[in-house]
Amino acid sequence: MPSSTYPRLDHPQAFLALDWGTTNLRAWVVSEGGEAGPALELPRGVSKLGPGEPAICLRDVVRPALKAENLPAVICGMAGSTLGWVEVPYSDCPADAASLAAGLYWIEDQDPPVAIVPGLRGAGVDGGPDVMRGEETQVIGWLAQDPSRLKGRHLLCHPGTHAKWVRVEDGRVVRFVTAMTGELFSILTRHSVLRCEEGPEDQHAFAQGLEAAGDGSALAARLFTARARVVGGGDLKPQGVRSFLSGLLIGSEVASTPALLGAEPPALITLIGDPKLCTAYATAMAHYGLKSQVFDGEAAVLAGLKAIILKG
Amino acid sequence: MPSSTYPRLDHPQAFLALDWGTTNLRAWVVSEGGEAGPALELPRGVSKLGPGEPAICLRDVVRPALKAENLPAVICGMAGSTLGWVEVPYSDCPADAASLAAGLYWIEDQDPPVAIVPGLRGAGVDGGPDVMRGEETQVIGWLAQDPSRLKGRHLLCHPGTHAKWVRVEDGRVVRFVTAMTGELFSILTRHSVLRCEEGPEDQHAFAQGLEAAGDGSALAARLFTARARVVGGGDLKPQGVRSFLSGLLIGSEVASTPALLGAEPPALITLIGDPKLCTAYATAMAHYGLKSQVFDGEAAVLAGLKAIILKG
Repeated sequence: MPSSTYPRLDHPQAFLALDWGTTNLRAWVVSEGGEAGPALELPRGVSKLGPGEPAICLRDVVRPALKAENLPAVICGMAGSTLGWVEVPYSDCPADAASLAAGLYWIEDQDPPVAIVPGLRGAGVDGGPDVMRGEETQVIGWLAQDPSRLKGRHLLCHPGTHAKWVRVEDGRVVRFVTAMTGELFSILTRHSVLRCEEGPEDQHAFAQGLEAAGDGSALAARLFTARARVVGGGDLKPQGVRSFLSGLLIGSEVASTPALLGAEPPALITLIGDPKLCTAYATAMAHYGLKSQVFDGEAAVLAGLKAIILKG
Repeated sequence: MPSSTYPRLDHPQAFLALDWGTTNLRAWVVSEGGEAGPALELPRGVSKLGPGEPAICLRDVVRPALKAENLPAVICGMAGSTLGWVEVPYSDCPADAASLAAGLYWIEDQDPPVAIVPGLRGAGVDGGPDVMRGEETQVIGWLAQDPSRLKGRHLLCHPGTHAKWVRVEDGRVVRFVTAMTGELFSILTRHSVLRCEEGPEDQHAFAQGLEAAGDGSALAARLFTARARVVGGGDLKPQGVRSFLSGLLIGSEVASTPALLGAEPPALITLIGDPKLCTAYATAMAHYGLKSQVFDGEAAVLAGLKAIILKG
């Protein structure tokens, strides 16, 4: 349970770090010196586990595989959701490493102890609530990686199933918006009239998709052009539909989501996450005249877990 | 096969009319006097039939059920697609009853004869191709129902799985855009994190969805608010998600699709189709300050088939 008297570990302290998502989990041993060992990646996301199974998975699979039987563990991601190990209350924006640490949820009856990083809640589209679980740790990690980032305003984008656009001011997450672009891509390519096989990426079709995204409006109409261009004698080949849709959906997101955060996009947008996906977003941003820089999501999550779990 | 020497039936002539879609078929006997009998509706859409089966279905099921063994038949809809009975080449815009009649496809070896109305191809989003099969007959029918409609410009909207926005000038379809709003609703409510059970309509949640649609941009972000408003302590109840999504998707379409047709929306938009769905669209149009009038799709398809199949 949350405990204000036991929020963080003393420093230096080795620990077990986990990024436990919906589909997969990744885990690392972090040494007393702060170095992370090799990642263990398992297809044991919380959506695939029943009640009680996360504790067993951690004890019987993850700890032995990493020889981490005696280390305290800290977990970020969907393990703290209704689908996960235990539902951890969201922390609220504005948020930084200290406020997330104050919301750490120490699970009862775990020895060695296990903490879950709280998710984050803030004002999203039209000021309504938005939520994240996991990406907050990467944002905090990116800030911790370079103290100069703790000053000023930044716009971060974390692409994925549910992409997050995050506004940071003076080291704190102030608000964010989620775009379910990755999930739209998944269900459209599997369940709709636009369904298509996986295949090699087609950069020309991706660029056609970016062009078709226009100003990010009228997505339901622009999507159908992926079919009309094929059956109506247009310039799109059936094997290009998948990359076209990727370009169209990412382009639509990039064109229209920053405006929902209530300010002009800054001169430079920071992309954090899967390198290949970040590269696709960077291409889309360049198409719209937006500059970006890409940071690796794995390094960010490790830096974030360290910043949250260890006393500063 | 298409035949320029046998495009239309003499008038007066009784015939069998079919609207043969992806999921269902509807059929009526139209008398010499032009009156349609009661509709036969069967769940035998072309997506559920294999090669050769449409001919058997017409001969062994539809004709006996309507005592129409000896009538020529005319079919509109997906029966003319790659999924259907035979692939009928699209007619091109600009299109009217005469140009569609010239493209009627008389199927070989059918006695009594069977014709399929060609689908329509025209310039859609950004001037790229767009296509329809079936809705063109309803547009032609609406025009045929009142000769005063043959003059001037009209904007028609045909809601559905793939909604069609159609610009008509002086009695001819000049261009149109498809929005796959209905299909997005279907796959989101069945296959995504927003999935939800069918239930009673919630007018308040529908209105919230219209509000959330904003200017029709950033759909992937606005969609996620259907989840964030529930799990993030917002103002949406889980049982309202379905109506919220309906309002959000229809609102987004209404807000941003007319602009893709390259001109200001006219003072009055004509809705043709399922009365319940048309009412939802009319509510969305009113939300955006657009006036609309609703016409029944069944009457329009019958009027259209008559206008296309019978010599004028």
